[in-house]
Amino acid sequence: MLRCTCETSSPVSDAARYHLTAGGARVRARIGLDAAIALGLSPTTALACAAAPELLHNASLIHDDLQDGDALRRNMPAVWSRYGRDAAISSGDLLISAAYKAIALHPNAGAAICAMHDAVSVTIRGQAQDCSARNHSSEDCAGIAADKSGPLLALPVRLALIAADAPGQEVAIRAGRAIAIAYQTLDDFVDKAADRATSATNICLSLEAEGHDPAAAISVARTRAQAALMSARQDARDLPNSAGTPLLTLVNRLEAQLKELDNAA
Amino acid sequence: MLRCTCETSSPVSDAARYHLTAGGARVRARIGLDAAIALGLSPTTALACAAAPELLHNASLIHDDLQDGDALRRNMPAVWSRYGRDAAISSGDLLISAAYKAIALHPNAGAAICAMHDAVSVTIRGQAQDCSARNHSSEDCAGIAADKSGPLLALPVRLALIAADAPGQEVAIRAGRAIAIAYQTLDDFVDKAADRATSATNICLSLEAEGHDPAAAISVARTRAQAALMSARQDARDLPNSAGTPLLTLVNRLEAQLKELDNAA
Repeated sequence: MLRCTCETSSPVSDAARYHLTAGGARVRARIGLDAAIALGLSPTTALACAAAPELLHNASLIHDDLQDGDALRRNMPAVWSRYGRDAAISSGDLLISAAYKAIALHPNAGAAICAMHDAVSVTIRGQAQDCSARNHSSEDCAGIAADKSGPLLALPVRLALIAADAPGQEVAIRAGRAIAIAYQTLDDFVDKAADRATSATNICLSLEAEGHDPAAAISVARTRAQAALMSARQDARDLPNSAGTPLLTLVNRLEAQLKELDNAA
Repeated sequence: MLRCTCETSSPVSDAARYHLTAGGARVRARIGLDAAIALGLSPTTALACAAAPELLHNASLIHDDLQDGDALRRNMPAVWSRYGRDAAISSGDLLISAAYKAIALHPNAGAAICAMHDAVSVTIRGQAQDCSARNHSSEDCAGIAADKSGPLLALPVRLALIAADAPGQEVAIRAGRAIAIAYQTLDDFVDKAADRATSATNICLSLEAEGHDPAAAISVARTRAQAALMSARQDARDLPNSAGTPLLTLVNRLEAQLKELDNAA
């Protein structure tokens, strides 16, 4: 992934390399690999399905951190705070382009490109909504979370399905959106105090603004997240040839995390 | 071009639409169309060869204006100064992605993607060098101009050659770099006073710093630009099936502009 991104050394490629080597769980890359393996695709195709969404995700993190003024990422200085704003803009651009480059060896590059742009457009729409207004309703919060994070969770599966010439694009998109809502709800539980201080989008705070007391807000948010995961589980199971298995794994993990919170409460 | 970029309305797509409808000469789109017509390609392919480089160019303008703090573009407020920095970042991202989307219908999308990423990487390297250090040598100035603007001038021809399965990638790249140097030299003549005030990269100022008096600096810069255009002319002629004709048109125009300056001096 690094080689195809940063062939020459420059402050920008250094910044991209710094960001990519800082870790992260590589969730989208794993989904891509597992979906590709489930569908019997070649190693080259599996790599494309894994690398492209992971690079897009990392590009979005670099630009989001700059836009949100988040100085830390993975317990290290965010790219913009270490390399400056200009390098952050350009290194994010480089990773978007590298993500498309990673798709060059996909057996149906044309259709894969369309899925990529669809995912990027919706992700950007979500980030724009998140940046633009405050005082979102709890329903808006869910929509923003689904837009911001759903497309790049679904994308690795979509790319694998396209390569296998298998159906399921809409099902994968829906599963990705539902998982994104649960993901964000868990984040919002953890970040509630910080988000209150910065007036950031947070489903619990929106539910409180809609009249729920703090405990009820958490309970409602959790119930909605669990419902989203149930729907994602069904969608993931409906995908052909076990291509949804990596999404099921994610659903199980998020359900366990929600349950832990339940026990802690 | 607009439709494939901005399917839904959001502050970000509004910003992208604002930028794209503000005009510009569409130099790269014209090169793509003319090269595709010369090579007998289909209208769909011609559109891909035209739209993708033009969208990448416009993405780079949005991000460059933000990075350089240029508040005006085409006599109107630059995207960042009208829509804010966050929307400028995201709308540039959207146009990079839309550029790749435009290539989806290219008959050899995989190879086209690789040419696109190559062009983006070098363009970003040039922009980074331009942003990073000051007091460039006159030779560095030429290299930066070639990196910043050459790849996207060559790209439409490269995409058309790839679609026609014709040779000439390196020749087109070289021609684009040489044309970019002449382009930038003409800009630097016009912007000399402003660039002196902001310590921006300017070949005339670099030549003065290397010991030339102002008149000699202009003369040396013009001679080098003319030499670059001669080399670009030869390369454009060497491209198969008159694919280089749109580059020759550009060479002729830039030569005439250099001559006008000669007469004015």
